[in-house]
Amino acid sequence: MKTSFGSDNHSGVHPKVLKALEDANQGYCLSYEEDEYSAQAGRVFKSFFGDQSRVYFVFNGTAANVLCLQALTRPHHSIICATTAHLHQDECGAPERFTGCKVLTADTGDGKLTPAHIKPHLTGFGFQHHSQPKVISISQSTELGTVYTPEEIKELADLAHNHNMYLHMDGSRLANAAAFLDLPFSAFTCDVGVDALSFGGTKNGMLLGEAVLFFDPKLSQDFLYVRKQSMQLFSKSRFVAAQYLAYFKNDLWLENAQHANRMARYLADKVSNLPGVQITQKVESNAVFAILPKPAYQQLVKKHFFYVWDELTDEVRWMCSFNTQKSYIDAFVNDLKNTLL
Amino acid sequence: MKTSFGSDNHSGVHPKVLKALEDANQGYCLSYEEDEYSAQAGRVFKSFFGDQSRVYFVFNGTAANVLCLQALTRPHHSIICATTAHLHQDECGAPERFTGCKVLTADTGDGKLTPAHIKPHLTGFGFQHHSQPKVISISQSTELGTVYTPEEIKELADLAHNHNMYLHMDGSRLANAAAFLDLPFSAFTCDVGVDALSFGGTKNGMLLGEAVLFFDPKLSQDFLYVRKQSMQLFSKSRFVAAQYLAYFKNDLWLENAQHANRMARYLADKVSNLPGVQITQKVESNAVFAILPKPAYQQLVKKHFFYVWDELTDEVRWMCSFNTQKSYIDAFVNDLKNTLL
Amino acid sequence: MKTSFGSDNHSGVHPKVLKALEDANQGYCLSYEEDEYSAQAGRVFKSFFGDQSRVYFVFNGTAANVLCLQALTRPHHSIICATTAHLHQDECGAPERFTGCKVLTADTGDGKLTPAHIKPHLTGFGFQHHSQPKVISISQSTELGTVYTPEEIKELADLAHNHNMYLHMDGSRLANAAAFLDLPFSAFTCDVGVDALSFGGTKNGMLLGEAVLFFDPKLSQDFLYVRKQSMQLFSKSRFVAAQYLAYFKNDLWLENAQHANRMARYLADKVSNLPGVQITQKVESNAVFAILPKPAYQQLVKKHFFYVWDELTDEVRWMCSFNTQKSYIDAFVNDLKNTLL
Amino acid sequence: MKTSFGSDNHSGVHPKVLKALEDANQGYCLSYEEDEYSAQAGRVFKSFFGDQSRVYFVFNGTAANVLCLQALTRPHHSIICATTAHLHQDECGAPERFTGCKVLTADTGDGKLTPAHIKPHLTGFGFQHHSQPKVISISQSTELGTVYTPEEIKELADLAHNHNMYLHMDGSRLANAAAFLDLPFSAFTCDVGVDALSFGGTKNGMLLGEAVLFFDPKLSQDFLYVRKQSMQLFSKSRFVAAQYLAYFKNDLWLENAQHANRMARYLADKVSNLPGVQITQKVESNAVFAILPKPAYQQLVKKHFFYVWDELTDEVRWMCSFNTQKSYIDAFVNDLKNTLL
Repeated sequence: MKTSFGSDNHSGVHPKVLKALEDANQGYCLSYEEDEYSAQAGRVFKSFFGDQSRVYFVFNGTAANVLCLQALTRPHHSIICATTAHLHQDECGAPERFTGCKVLTADTGDGKLTPAHIKPHLTGFGFQHHSQPKVISISQSTELGTVYTPEEIKELADLAHNHNMYLHMDGSRLANAAAFLDLPFSAFTCDVGVDALSFGGTKNGMLLGEAVLFFDPKLSQDFLYVRKQSMQLFSKSRFVAAQYLAYFKNDLWLENAQHANRMARYLADKVSNLPGVQITQKVESNAVFAILPKPAYQQLVKKHFFYVWDELTDEVRWMCSFNTQKSYIDAFVNDLKNTLL
Repeated sequence: MKTSFGSDNHSGVHPKVLKALEDANQGYCLSYEEDEYSAQAGRVFKSFFGDQSRVYFVFNGTAANVLCLQALTRPHHSIICATTAHLHQDECGAPERFTGCKVLTADTGDGKLTPAHIKPHLTGFGFQHHSQPKVISISQSTELGTVYTPEEIKELADLAHNHNMYLHMDGSRLANAAAFLDLPFSAFTCDVGVDALSFGGTKNGMLLGEAVLFFDPKLSQDFLYVRKQSMQLFSKSRFVAAQYLAYFKNDLWLENAQHANRMARYLADKVSNLPGVQITQKVESNAVFAILPKPAYQQLVKKHFFYVWDELTDEVRWMCSFNTQKSYIDAFVNDLKNTLL
Repeated sequence: MKTSFGSDNHSGVHPKVLKALEDANQGYCLSYEEDEYSAQAGRVFKSFFGDQSRVYFVFNGTAANVLCLQALTRPHHSIICATTAHLHQDECGAPERFTGCKVLTADTGDGKLTPAHIKPHLTGFGFQHHSQPKVISISQSTELGTVYTPEEIKELADLAHNHNMYLHMDGSRLANAAAFLDLPFSAFTCDVGVDALSFGGTKNGMLLGEAVLFFDPKLSQDFLYVRKQSMQLFSKSRFVAAQYLAYFKNDLWLENAQHANRMARYLADKVSNLPGVQITQKVESNAVFAILPKPAYQQLVKKHFFYVWDELTDEVRWMCSFNTQKSYIDAFVNDLKNTLL
Repeated sequence: MKTSFGSDNHSGVHPKVLKALEDANQGYCLSYEEDEYSAQAGRVFKSFFGDQSRVYFVFNGTAANVLCLQALTRPHHSIICATTAHLHQDECGAPERFTGCKVLTADTGDGKLTPAHIKPHLTGFGFQHHSQPKVISISQSTELGTVYTPEEIKELADLAHNHNMYLHMDGSRLANAAAFLDLPFSAFTCDVGVDALSFGGTKNGMLLGEAVLFFDPKLSQDFLYVRKQSMQLFSKSRFVAAQYLAYFKNDLWLENAQHANRMARYLADKVSNLPGVQITQKVESNAVFAILPKPAYQQLVKKHFFYVWDELTDEVRWMCSFNTQKSYIDAFVNDLKNTLL
């Protein structure tokens, strides 16, 4: 596989992150997040999200989402998300299985929930036959590459809190959103009412390891046990924490995300005027969604790996990452042009 | 922390394993075990365990155990293990939570189950009020550092199969057992009737990543979904597979395990005749269990990290690993002698 | 509460059913369905559904549904039903909690699923990230009072079986459907491909006790344990079985259901031409759905209990039962007329 | 089956309870505990247990136990009970499955836990790898027919509360304990620190229906949803409530329990001096446990149904109930004598 626009997890690890693993591989350390690397990484997270934030590392994004939701719910609750949400589409029912909750969805068009999408599900409060709505979950950036503004998020947080509910954010691609908004993480998370955050690193140059953040310590009071019981406690924890230290050092995370976003923009610009190609979503992060003729993408995918998003509409998804090169895109677009002839 | 006898996961990663991560960090790869590294690692596992074996990677040992058990059981079953089993003592109830099964235990003395321990739990078959016994789970090597012989394992497997049950092995320290027995893995797993195996690597020099093995493909027919839903599917899977390739190359795993076992033996030999020190378990792998005067270990632990195993009996546990040095042990024993004066 | 059109479970118990409880209250009996009443009731069920059918009693309709689904699924599966399905709307998330499955819904208009509703959910087979579709669940009669024909059911069963899936029927009001179709139960259940059936009695004159039926013994091989573990095993089981014996004797079930249906028809006929009243669903069983002016139903509900089905559309639901009297309806319609003036 | 000493649930329903069902079968009632019978029964329970008590009806004893435990725990907790506890032995793993908790047991001899049994399990508080102890569960009267004194219960409650834990009581045979102690229910439940109570009626003359009681309203704040989602909400709820009204009227419950206890006492007295018969437990409620020669009980069980409690020790259990007659016992003892010759 020469290049891939299939997923940002088809890329490897940023060299600085890998180097951090080597550097951390000295001597003995306590395990299970009782090591000094974990303590230090915890302090860095607090510098971003404030003293009331609590951070815990888990293995992957599915776990980050499911464990946030476990902490926010009891089994008789319901969770509301966009139909396109990763937690609904791509986690093989893990949220239902491990929270016991009902997952309710809304069709959105661009992957972004609005109060209007959610309100039809805000019924049956106090009615014993009905799963009680408890969490709104949004993805930032969304699975369609779009990005919520802080104002949009605040509106959803207010809606949630007015109904005694929580707002969860799936930040598997949070860095890309921050890069697009040109804002610190806090400006569109804890500062605007997000209660729990799945903070991703893997898709932006880490090897593995996602973080779960709570912005009210009460929400995380049992979380050590929830994580352990949910099979998400890393023994040699220094090797996740060290990655995060490298990820945050000199804003590597931002550099990576800006690059990925820039590449997606570059790709979109180069294809948007091609005959037969229609960009279907705003390009606000590192994804480009496009409709193109079936014969074209069927030929193109043989040379450059990517996924068909929707067979019925001939829509494809092209993902860029921290190590996507302009030259790959140029070659890709060139090949695309040839298939369109 | 200069040195630690606290746990084999206080050690870092073997340099060859770390090097393998670097080497694997080239270009793009499919994720989710569809990459070439995973395919290759799968073939190596088959070379050890035969063509009918099926291997899946998961993040940690708790997950390996729980996912094996999920595949072998339905919620109305029971699982029988030693009271000292990691899955009973140290997984915060994960087996109960994720299988729904009852966990029944037997006190053993040395961590090794025998048919006599198990038989009292083999009751109530066909009685609807009673959890139906379905799995015997043993640890190899055990949490007390002892090792089952192939004959002992076969006897348990036969007992299980005669009752329409399965035998699971928690092989978190399987390499240490293989080194002690001087036998290939298969000789004390699939060849003697083990049905499902948690194959550990982390405690023997890997960064993270355990493997789940089934020796009858029927047992794993739904396992892809079980793993994904259980939040144990690694996206950048090449980085677990590559570790295993390095781990198996030129028998690095064996070298590491032999070293760790040798160090435990060395430590045991040096302390066994000290006045006031009593070795409490056979030293068959990389653990030494000893009773010593409370003032002695309370002083010693300040200089050399280790865990008190049982406050009531003043028993401590000392673990060795692939990078325990003789010089550490010499210094440790020296300090121990001083505390005993 | 003089009369109620609120629910068929606002009615009490048919006197013959209550008499059967008295008659069964003689002497000692084995419990937990090992009694002679249970054996006899089992034989009656077989006379309706054939020798391959297996019947188990549970306490209520939620349990009947959830236990059927537990027997048909593993947690990584999904269940497809109408948005209006009781198992989606009115069971407080019990199906998700106890099966671990994802519940997917389709909007239908009349409560009846067609292949066209289901097909969009029949995707992702073999894709590890996706809950695997396993069960189609339909209600007969539906929560909107409509009834599937045998042909419609067969079409759904074929669709399910062609995808290696099962067809479950929520027959909480099965008797009303049988009365409407004028067919034996088997003609629209086991004979047309239904795999598992929740057979209701409570809404048609029993005190409590629903039955779970499987039409392939393989599906029920572990069901004794599933039921017990799911807290649905009745100790003094003779008192459910005896009810069913009375229910089936001289077709009491049919008489009750025919009466309830007839009353609904009578009610619908009397109101359908009233100005401002619009019947919204076909009246095929014991429910009448109607839209009427808000002031009218707000006044009417003070004298005659019933539920507003949809506040937004001013739709109400009127249920009839085995002991609804014509005179109640006459009085009800009279009062309705007055509110409409 | 003429007579049975097999179980107190081999008896039918007390005629006054059955009569109450008839009386309640008048007209229409709201369902799901919104009816007047349920309200009235709630008031009676409060008259026994105080204004802060909260009562909810469920279908059976397994559900009463499991739902109490669900309300008191989160899945990372553990529950401590006697090895003989019904919730450990006879609920097919329902507590584990529906709470997710680990169940830890202690061997007791007489079925009664003491602080000394429990303390070995009170470890690992705050240790993330360890299920956190949260509930002590005791049975009153026990499965071995013994009864805790209020002082003994208070000691356990204090132990629990000192560790931030709860005390649950399985009162499946609470009436028999009250009769033995000659005390009101409150004197050995809420007044001495019990937090949640499974209140049984079925074994003492009701048809079905157990009650769940909480003595601090905070513990039950979500219980309506827990019950519904756990498939334990009765639609025609008046028919459970009405039974309880009859059960409490003129102390029918006490009369029944006193009778059953007296019969057990009578039986024990008559057999205790027979050669070869050894009473093994104090006869404090309605059970008699005895060891007798295998040929004797094998012959006796053909004429009078009862269960062998322990094949290995030749121990049998004889249960009396509200409708056990002296004449049955006389005949039984006579036949026993003949088998012993």
